[in-house]
Amino acid sequence: MIDSLDLHLKPIGWVHCPAKKPPRHWTVSDLEGELRMDPRYLEGLRDIKPGQRIVVIFYFHKSPGFKDRFLIQSPPHMNKELGVFSTCSPRRPNPIGMSVLKVLGVEGNVIRVKGLDMLDGTPILDIKPYIRPRATSDPDD
Amino acid sequence: MIDSLDLHLKPIGWVHCPAKKPPRHWTVSDLEGELRMDPRYLEGLRDIKPGQRIVVIFYFHKSPGFKDRFLIQSPPHMNKELGVFSTCSPRRPNPIGMSVLKVLGVEGNVIRVKGLDMLDGTPILDIKPYIRPRATSDPDD
Repeated sequence: MIDSLDLHLKPIGWVHCPAKKPPRHWTVSDLEGELRMDPRYLEGLRDIKPGQRIVVIFYFHKSPGFKDRFLIQSPPHMNKELGVFSTCSPRRPNPIGMSVLKVLGVEGNVIRVKGLDMLDGTPILDIKPYIRPRATSDPDD
Repeated sequence: MIDSLDLHLKPIGWVHCPAKKPPRHWTVSDLEGELRMDPRYLEGLRDIKPGQRIVVIFYFHKSPGFKDRFLIQSPPHMNKELGVFSTCSPRRPNPIGMSVLKVLGVEGNVIRVKGLDMLDGTPILDIKPYIRPRATSDPDD
């Protein structure tokens, strides 16, 4: 194990979104906005189509540094405390966020999306296809 | 836009998995293994329960550096080329992976999981609760 491993990432785009206070989570958001991608990655966007869902991995750029007292948190919409890894809080050891957004349209390096829960200017780290888990007969699924 | 933004992340745990060649994707994997988390985050794991699904964000530590020729790729199980952001390839501008795993059990800082598609020693960046999108009447969903 390499405990001191220091990983470097760079934004591949930025969220553009007019809302001062976006909804707390993509599952309850109808907010529309844009993902303005670095034009150097234009070719890699070519199979993103209107109507589909995408997974957007981003950086919580306004998150304060992580402290041990954030290991247990009370999400704003819940009346209980949860371990940080069972929440979507921006205050987490690595300030990485993940949202599933609906694609409304793609024009060049700009992806119009719906379901935003990020702040204007949020750095985007990755976009992936949204894939559902396999259906199983497991009642817990 | 801050084009030179350089983001630093640290592993919060590592994948332990016996397979030399894990399945290509979590949706087709029954592989079991462990997420061995840094004990400093133990308290944050307390609400992760057997039977649930979790989202695991990780670092493709064996991925080669990204080159423009990786903007279009042919996934191994498909007979067509796709833009990188429509694939789950480890060769991407930021080598971040995301898998949805089933929790089999939690003992201290070790989470036993099923559905692994990562290599042994993969650095884990984050764990989040798995949340489905809202059901809608949209036929594209």
